[in-house]
Amino acid sequence: MDTSARKYGRVDDAFVGELAAIVGKDKVSTSDSVCQQHGQDESYHPNMPPDVVIFPQSTEQVSAVVKACAAKSIPVIPFGAGTSLEGHVAATHGGVSIDLSEMNAILEVHNEDLDVVVQPGVRRMQLNAHLRDTGLFFPVDPGADASIGGMVATRASGTNTVRYGAMRENVMALQVVLADGRIIRTSSRAKKSAAGYDLTHLFIGSEGTLGVITEITLKLYGIPEAVSSAVCPFPSVDNAVNTVIATIQSGVPVARIEFLDDASMDSVNSYSKLNYTVAPTLFFEFHGSEAGVAEQAEMVSEIAAEYGGTNFQWATKQEDRDRLWHARHNAYYAARSRHPGTKGVIGDACVPISRLAEAITIAKMDMDQTPIPTYIVGHVGDGNFHTLYMIDPDDPSQEKEAKKSVERTVKMAISMGGTCTGEHGVGMGKIDYLRDEHGDAIDVMSSIKVALDPLNIMNPDKVVLV
Amino acid sequence: MDTSARKYGRVDDAFVGELAAIVGKDKVSTSDSVCQQHGQDESYHPNMPPDVVIFPQSTEQVSAVVKACAAKSIPVIPFGAGTSLEGHVAATHGGVSIDLSEMNAILEVHNEDLDVVVQPGVRRMQLNAHLRDTGLFFPVDPGADASIGGMVATRASGTNTVRYGAMRENVMALQVVLADGRIIRTSSRAKKSAAGYDLTHLFIGSEGTLGVITEITLKLYGIPEAVSSAVCPFPSVDNAVNTVIATIQSGVPVARIEFLDDASMDSVNSYSKLNYTVAPTLFFEFHGSEAGVAEQAEMVSEIAAEYGGTNFQWATKQEDRDRLWHARHNAYYAARSRHPGTKGVIGDACVPISRLAEAITIAKMDMDQTPIPTYIVGHVGDGNFHTLYMIDPDDPSQEKEAKKSVERTVKMAISMGGTCTGEHGVGMGKIDYLRDEHGDAIDVMSSIKVALDPLNIMNPDKVVLV
Repeated sequence: MDTSARKYGRVDDAFVGELAAIVGKDKVSTSDSVCQQHGQDESYHPNMPPDVVIFPQSTEQVSAVVKACAAKSIPVIPFGAGTSLEGHVAATHGGVSIDLSEMNAILEVHNEDLDVVVQPGVRRMQLNAHLRDTGLFFPVDPGADASIGGMVATRASGTNTVRYGAMRENVMALQVVLADGRIIRTSSRAKKSAAGYDLTHLFIGSEGTLGVITEITLKLYGIPEAVSSAVCPFPSVDNAVNTVIATIQSGVPVARIEFLDDASMDSVNSYSKLNYTVAPTLFFEFHGSEAGVAEQAEMVSEIAAEYGGTNFQWATKQEDRDRLWHARHNAYYAARSRHPGTKGVIGDACVPISRLAEAITIAKMDMDQTPIPTYIVGHVGDGNFHTLYMIDPDDPSQEKEAKKSVERTVKMAISMGGTCTGEHGVGMGKIDYLRDEHGDAIDVMSSIKVALDPLNIMNPDKVVLV
Repeated sequence: MDTSARKYGRVDDAFVGELAAIVGKDKVSTSDSVCQQHGQDESYHPNMPPDVVIFPQSTEQVSAVVKACAAKSIPVIPFGAGTSLEGHVAATHGGVSIDLSEMNAILEVHNEDLDVVVQPGVRRMQLNAHLRDTGLFFPVDPGADASIGGMVATRASGTNTVRYGAMRENVMALQVVLADGRIIRTSSRAKKSAAGYDLTHLFIGSEGTLGVITEITLKLYGIPEAVSSAVCPFPSVDNAVNTVIATIQSGVPVARIEFLDDASMDSVNSYSKLNYTVAPTLFFEFHGSEAGVAEQAEMVSEIAAEYGGTNFQWATKQEDRDRLWHARHNAYYAARSRHPGTKGVIGDACVPISRLAEAITIAKMDMDQTPIPTYIVGHVGDGNFHTLYMIDPDDPSQEKEAKKSVERTVKMAISMGGTCTGEHGVGMGKIDYLRDEHGDAIDVMSSIKVALDPLNIMNPDKVVLV
């Protein structure tokens, strides 16, 4: 971590007054509890509170705040819903947390063009509730009810990615406030463009280190005519994962294909009051026409049967499907609730699908060596799996041991042509692995960071160290 | 255009000797004919030959050549197949053209992971011929038998994009030689990643201005079980385009949906010896299972019938489909052959699909004002259409008039929330419109260009002027 804190300006009363003049006095807080709440995400990373939190109401206010920060070299940390997992919101040098939750308007729904323009504070579930009557939906679903701005900033994905793509594939254009306060638009609403460098993708996954995202244009999809979900236990991890590999290679356009290991199924059963078989399990979802869904389901059933997955439990009614996916989405919270007082250290490796069975098997053997309670879940249709360690925050040896295990999994994934993070982002938690993964390309990332944020005020100590 | 030519070094005999020492004497040419051939694409842009052309055999050779160029501030222009349309290959300050056509190996096919690693000189048709026995294919199809490197560099798309996406969606990772000769890899073979800035997308569409692409990992798809194509004439442009809009909005996963106006159909008939009805026409293709294709075809037939498109001509046999798409792909060459000695000035607007009928109607009215022969074709499923003006290269007033008409179409597209170029790229031809489209975001592009190519040796005077 960059410890040259001296280069940053101090947030004093006069500066807080400047901020209040921009956003209004009631939209500025220096209270301990508010600052603490903004220095912490949902993971094990230590709480590093900002000096002040502001709640802007417009892009122009964000721009004025960033300008004021730039003038005094004060760090700026954008904050969405706080559901990130790699310490993205930690204010390593204090500064101003820009909480975008009050910029949560859905600005324009273009039914005919299948797109929507939203402010960054809009939550995923809020968006889909708003869209329901239009017959359209936004598919990217990381589980948590994250803000759209945060999902863009971390290049989130989750279930549904195997069919609809991640944020990377579903953001058409952004409005961004740069590190000097300038406001830009990265692209248009055209479905494709070859007009210059792809700034949209540069800001997707930039984790607040290049600018503050203040408006987002997203792709939408028609709600499928038919949807069908299923849960199926397997005799082993290997059998489950080989079913995934065969399904993807067969080209069946499955919408979701999720893996939970036996430990996860057990805690999900307790937490969500269900009675699924405690075994390595796949959760499926199929989207399409009535005939298409039936055809997909039949093909996948046949593949699963070859690997001993014969006990499909189908859910076609909305409420049954909701219960099923609710259980899947709450796997992390289920694990936390099973081990009260623990925090999660979470691996997020992603490998080419041909290596997935091997990767999960090796990771599981590694995890089985530790006395820490561990779980594996994964968006396995993409080759992405999470290794979850529920650590006692008062026992530093547990954090150390969990992180060492994550590191071994990361190195394995990279050696297989994979990545250290499929969807959680770098934050502070994965920063040490980036050179292993990218080599000298890190220096290109640093050059871009320096070019766009010469004072290094935008979310410092995340993604790249400069 | 930047006229400060003095800042560039001279290609003298000693420097040509340096290049020969790197790539071998027989892989360097300073002959007039070779240099002329490398200063010209397939459009109206003036021939601006490089001083020397080299034919490297490896990434290491490219790196050594770029290093040598950087040491003397000599421009570097990457060259693929020369099929671009906006003057991308013009050597505005002379320098070294790096012809990558001999780096044309297909390095690795990963059947199980649905990806392939290729060198940049591999041609689109070569790749699909190579893949045929694997049951996989690469869908991006700009018509011309372009090089994969060139398709990445210009963010190409074409037919099939409506279903499979453009190059933007289908490149997983790149190896790139930077402006100082460093070699980087932008990403891994993982299907998704949140590990740092998205350098892959930064280089896609960078048109040789940030580095030389020397290796490409592409997504592949299973060859669909069933494919069916159809041609259908419509009573008016409006009826045809409204059929497209309704089809896209219905969510039918059509693989191709292409528009040709009556003039294009007439020249296609002559050129390809066919007898299609001379009317505004849509070309369709459907991919899927037997049942899926039948379902899609039926839905689209119903939509088309509502707009007067009742005379579908179906092609399901491979040879019939090939003839149909061959005709479509040769629309530009058909126009050129109908007006011998002419060159094409080509518009490439792309608008949100809801505005497409209006945009094409206005563009056609504008084109009808000029005595120059004009044509409209389009990848209309994406909202992308080409306005084609066959100009007499000896009559400067025609070039001027055609470019003015293109400019009006560009401004209309931008005012509709669209883009000045859907797929051809900026080159020299669209550079004047970028600020209209992107505003201050251009300055961000310039900052990135300066950060990664401080000497401005990489394909100068393209995309952004610095």
